[in-house]
Amino acid sequence: MIIAVIGDASCSTEEAELAEAVGEELAQRGVTIICGGLGGVMEASCRGAKSKGGLTIGILPGEDSSMANQYVDIPIATGVGYARNMAVVKSAQAAIAIGGNYGTLSEIAYALKRGIPVIGLNTWSLCRNGQKGDPIIRVHSATEAVDKAIAAVKEKVAEGLR
Amino acid sequence: MIIAVIGDASCSTEEAELAEAVGEELAQRGVTIICGGLGGVMEASCRGAKSKGGLTIGILPGEDSSMANQYVDIPIATGVGYARNMAVVKSAQAAIAIGGNYGTLSEIAYALKRGIPVIGLNTWSLCRNGQKGDPIIRVHSATEAVDKAIAAVKEKVAEGLR
Amino acid sequence: MIIAVIGDASCSTEEAELAEAVGEELAQRGVTIICGGLGGVMEASCRGAKSKGGLTIGILPGEDSSMANQYVDIPIATGVGYARNMAVVKSAQAAIAIGGNYGTLSEIAYALKRGIPVIGLNTWSLCRNGQKGDPIIRVHSATEAVDKAIAAVKEKVAEGLR
Amino acid sequence: MIIAVIGDASCSTEEAELAEAVGEELAQRGVTIICGGLGGVMEASCRGAKSKGGLTIGILPGEDSSMANQYVDIPIATGVGYARNMAVVKSAQAAIAIGGNYGTLSEIAYALKRGIPVIGLNTWSLCRNGQKGDPIIRVHSATEAVDKAIAAVKEKVAEGLR
Repeated sequence: MIIAVIGDASCSTEEAELAEAVGEELAQRGVTIICGGLGGVMEASCRGAKSKGGLTIGILPGEDSSMANQYVDIPIATGVGYARNMAVVKSAQAAIAIGGNYGTLSEIAYALKRGIPVIGLNTWSLCRNGQKGDPIIRVHSATEAVDKAIAAVKEKVAEGLR
Repeated sequence: MIIAVIGDASCSTEEAELAEAVGEELAQRGVTIICGGLGGVMEASCRGAKSKGGLTIGILPGEDSSMANQYVDIPIATGVGYARNMAVVKSAQAAIAIGGNYGTLSEIAYALKRGIPVIGLNTWSLCRNGQKGDPIIRVHSATEAVDKAIAAVKEKVAEGLR
Repeated sequence: MIIAVIGDASCSTEEAELAEAVGEELAQRGVTIICGGLGGVMEASCRGAKSKGGLTIGILPGEDSSMANQYVDIPIATGVGYARNMAVVKSAQAAIAIGGNYGTLSEIAYALKRGIPVIGLNTWSLCRNGQKGDPIIRVHSATEAVDKAIAAVKEKVAEGLR
Repeated sequence: MIIAVIGDASCSTEEAELAEAVGEELAQRGVTIICGGLGGVMEASCRGAKSKGGLTIGILPGEDSSMANQYVDIPIATGVGYARNMAVVKSAQAAIAIGGNYGTLSEIAYALKRGIPVIGLNTWSLCRNGQKGDPIIRVHSATEAVDKAIAAVKEKVAEGLR
């Protein structure tokens, strides 16, 4: 299973701690992490994953693999700028958003467009005109985020088998 | 001046009417329209613009210019899929969002990330965690949308000159 | 008709003169030019086209329309880096390559992959393993380049109608 | 070390055998393979690598990871179409081209543009106008291809340290 962790390259201490805990939790459950490969939330989640022996993939905007944070095992240098945001989420079965700015918002949009469940920790709220309900599954801790993400993936697989 | 009109390929009659009126209004003020080049809101805004002698650009996701709606003067076949959403807004000085689904949300995100003003007609509401206020400038008619979009562009230019 | 002019951002005086002449010739025949929007061959061909009242489109790699050369009428800021090379040729019905480095080679490859005829002026020679013949139509003057490009487009259209 | 294996989705039996042997050889030397993730040369090289316990990455053009061939360990669904060709080579330290059509030619171009050494097995010959010599390092066996690719990477690293 591959789960995306999305969030900004600059983040608060609280967000970094959440991201690190999410990374640890995912690795402990055998989930591979995919992210944008840079700093902030991306780096913290990779650091967490590596501390528990997980595998980490970083999808970089630029042309140079060496721009990846030091906790990325597999850096992918796309060269397509922020179009890489699409690749981050589409390569995952679910996405966990932590905090986040407009780049993260574009990743949330691409994930939801493709039917990939998005779990949110202190992130954007969305409301489509004239409609009730936010398409993001809102949670309040790293453990809950990982629980809900894995459950959402399993539910989608089960739906696919029906 | 180039202004993006963003919205879904499938839209309600009301949204199509709004988009057509926005296209007419932009053309009457000499503004070039850029959009995703397909149907729905994109087609309606181009139809409006052409009825008033405007110029229309369609940035297509696929490899085939002939996929553009018939009101597109200049079709650009990017071949980069929904990464073309980035090109639609980044080539404009402002964006007017009409209705819209997740693709439109990704365009709103890319525009705001780049500091391009987004004017909203019956579109997404956004709320960043722990922050007040929606970054989208909300309006209620085609004329108001075009007024606000042009004013926002002029304000940015004036800021740049200061 | 839209024809791409492809070549490097840094070029020799001879290449710039060829590019300018190609731009003039295309404009005189009512053909819109599409190019990568930057300097060198791209700028020279746009300058030529504008001197004869032609229309020019520049597909930029970056996020900033103001990076276009001053002879570009319609700058498209793709933000997808050199993936924009694909958009340059796929939006055209034929491509004229003048000189050129590896970026131009990638454009030639994308054009030929899509069945878009490539006319070459002092550009790459290609030879596929074990096969005779270069897929590039080789010419020796600006006028011949434009003649062959327009003829190739018309032939393709005629084939499509058969 | 990550080395790209590039070639067409449809290939001859001889090319498939070469690609499989290259995959085996790379895996035996502990090199991770990156490729376009689809069939033909891509699949054969991944099959070879997996038979020797190697790690394989597939950079897909589409939005669906399940399109990867069955020997891909890490499928990346970019959604950017053939712009993914750029990501395949830019994420590698060297590229081995086997046979190949225009897609492969675009990958060769992007690799050389970025200074990434390209080793060729029965692939394109290139000749820049007015210049001697083909920038592709030509070899005649899978073992020689892998030898030369690894040597080229080591030489570049050594140059970087000087």
